[in-house]
Amino acid sequence: MNWLLPEYLADALPAEAARIERLRRTVLDHFRSRGFELVMPPMLEYLESLLTGAGQDLKLRTFKLVDQLSGRTMGVRADITPQAARIDAHLLNHQGVTRLCYCGNVLHTLPATISAGREPLQIGAELYGYAGIAADLDVIRLMAGAFDQIKLPIRRIDLGHVGIFRALAEAAGLPQEAEDSVLSLLQTKDVPGLIEACANVPSPYREALQRLPQLYGGADVLERAAAELPPLPAITAALEGLRHLLVGAPELPFSIDLSDLRGYHYHNGVVFAAYCDGYPAAIALGGRYDGAGKAFGRARPATGFSMDLREVARLVTVGKSNGAILAPHAGQNKHLAAHIAALREQGEIVVELLHGETACEGPLCDRKLALVGEHWIIEAIQED
Amino acid sequence: MNWLLPEYLADALPAEAARIERLRRTVLDHFRSRGFELVMPPMLEYLESLLTGAGQDLKLRTFKLVDQLSGRTMGVRADITPQAARIDAHLLNHQGVTRLCYCGNVLHTLPATISAGREPLQIGAELYGYAGIAADLDVIRLMAGAFDQIKLPIRRIDLGHVGIFRALAEAAGLPQEAEDSVLSLLQTKDVPGLIEACANVPSPYREALQRLPQLYGGADVLERAAAELPPLPAITAALEGLRHLLVGAPELPFSIDLSDLRGYHYHNGVVFAAYCDGYPAAIALGGRYDGAGKAFGRARPATGFSMDLREVARLVTVGKSNGAILAPHAGQNKHLAAHIAALREQGEIVVELLHGETACEGPLCDRKLALVGEHWIIEAIQED
Repeated sequence: MNWLLPEYLADALPAEAARIERLRRTVLDHFRSRGFELVMPPMLEYLESLLTGAGQDLKLRTFKLVDQLSGRTMGVRADITPQAARIDAHLLNHQGVTRLCYCGNVLHTLPATISAGREPLQIGAELYGYAGIAADLDVIRLMAGAFDQIKLPIRRIDLGHVGIFRALAEAAGLPQEAEDSVLSLLQTKDVPGLIEACANVPSPYREALQRLPQLYGGADVLERAAAELPPLPAITAALEGLRHLLVGAPELPFSIDLSDLRGYHYHNGVVFAAYCDGYPAAIALGGRYDGAGKAFGRARPATGFSMDLREVARLVTVGKSNGAILAPHAGQNKHLAAHIAALREQGEIVVELLHGETACEGPLCDRKLALVGEHWIIEAIQED
Repeated sequence: MNWLLPEYLADALPAEAARIERLRRTVLDHFRSRGFELVMPPMLEYLESLLTGAGQDLKLRTFKLVDQLSGRTMGVRADITPQAARIDAHLLNHQGVTRLCYCGNVLHTLPATISAGREPLQIGAELYGYAGIAADLDVIRLMAGAFDQIKLPIRRIDLGHVGIFRALAEAAGLPQEAEDSVLSLLQTKDVPGLIEACANVPSPYREALQRLPQLYGGADVLERAAAELPPLPAITAALEGLRHLLVGAPELPFSIDLSDLRGYHYHNGVVFAAYCDGYPAAIALGGRYDGAGKAFGRARPATGFSMDLREVARLVTVGKSNGAILAPHAGQNKHLAAHIAALREQGEIVVELLHGETACEGPLCDRKLALVGEHWIIEAIQED
């Protein structure tokens, strides 16, 4: 069976492809209406350009290829965000705020999670050139608005801030290796492991690091954090930023999770993750990653979010829509041909049968064109 | 400058990306309105599945990768047509006619022509399960209709039929090697070389092969071909098919070229190529490739066409459209926020400035929201 596809790769057949296409247009139109401009970076870049500033996980997830024109190694993009940052930093070179969006396939050597495929259809938006928390709020609202548009309710938006752990690790003087191991214990919320790993960390940073997994819940978490964490300026600023988000968008189902450190090596401010019913992992992820364009010549404030539209499409319920209209072969019958053209103009799908073709197995035809007297009329197709 | 892209790969920046996106929707909607259903095959497949029945040129143009999950070699698709044939043959398994369409990136190790990039955005439509010439006519009309929709005039559609050369080569008993060399001489229209290479071919096939490059022009070519080529059944049938196309779509700018043998190893019936002013190569290519699904379990009649939407987008003139509207930061101003939302509902692009942001360098803002008395009105932005 050499026509089986590799694991974690799949065709989108007509019903799924139509759903994805519809969502794609809705979300891109949403971005566009807010001034986020579409860009289309290439699938391939030189590896060093693609992986500049990337974490180890992205490096491992990137397929490598040899460029036959230059002999250099290219990578197949595993994430579009760094490409957008390159475009902002290097090509557009605006001094003010730049708003970009994109939608394209990325490829992963291995699936990022058990539920994910190896070819996400990444759709997202990025805002460059504005360092304040207002930009993060804007991007979170943009994300929430996209879910409104596609009528997929967001159950919860987790907010975190990587600056808190970064400040604690720095103040505690954690060596890189210890920082990495504490980070991974926090990410898996392994509290016993965390207590052990922090045993030799000086007070009050030991207690603070050990407390992080408990700093999870509603708005009160920010009060508890302010009381329980050392008043380092970076921590105070981070908590202030999170409070600004809660106040700024009271309509959103925010939840605070100060040990959510996904993308720690990449992000450096507010991070957020949206969850929907029926999907175990985060359905959309985002956050601040200031300085991402530095390697491309310009360090710029940056914040944005993205999601895998193929996963999103699985969660969206399909509205009932009209099927197609089956039409006889028009041939030289100009009256029929004009009638078919007019129906298509009105947005109908009309399958014109080929000479000798009697039925259509393609799009669901629920109606047909029939000649009654001298007029072509639309009749329902009777189910057998 | 490690942020330079590899040769023949390029970003589509906002103006170009918007144009491509608009064309993409127009052409896919055109396909959809005629019952061609969208499919989205993956970027990667096992190599033997991707290259089944492919010619040597496609094999050389395909990037190879190792699948870390299976250890097997995968290819990055260089053409979506064989994937569509796989889906028709193996997955959908309809007995009747299947109409499919697609739009996606493909990658080439080397550019196919001097003008082409290495990452075409291939958009196309395929019709499976109908062996008659009516399906070819349908697909050619679908192609011409797509150009009508995007308002790019087709200057000429070259028609050929690979069955003519195939029948001559067979009847003349040309060994494979001689067939290949005569084929490549015909493709480059090297008449002196052709005369020499055919010197030992028996009559009347020698004269017929040598005549092919002259069988180029209007409808009269079919009469000349019938008179000058040997009356082999396959040749008579091929000429009859071409005549059917000329009669069936008299509105199209057809031209006959019996030595057009592009994709000879792949096609086995009518082939066609559309040309536009300002573009040296064919802008869209198609033809019949019966039996393409055989390796996937089912040999099916097949005909279709495709084009590179990135190239098409370069040729399309851009209509003048409204720019964006610049709006002040709404903040807690619910009246302004509602006004902005209403404008977006009406299809306007409204850039809401962030706190402290004064101008927008992104989408061209030609108007702004201004408070006059108690009312927000839209004013033209004065050029400095």
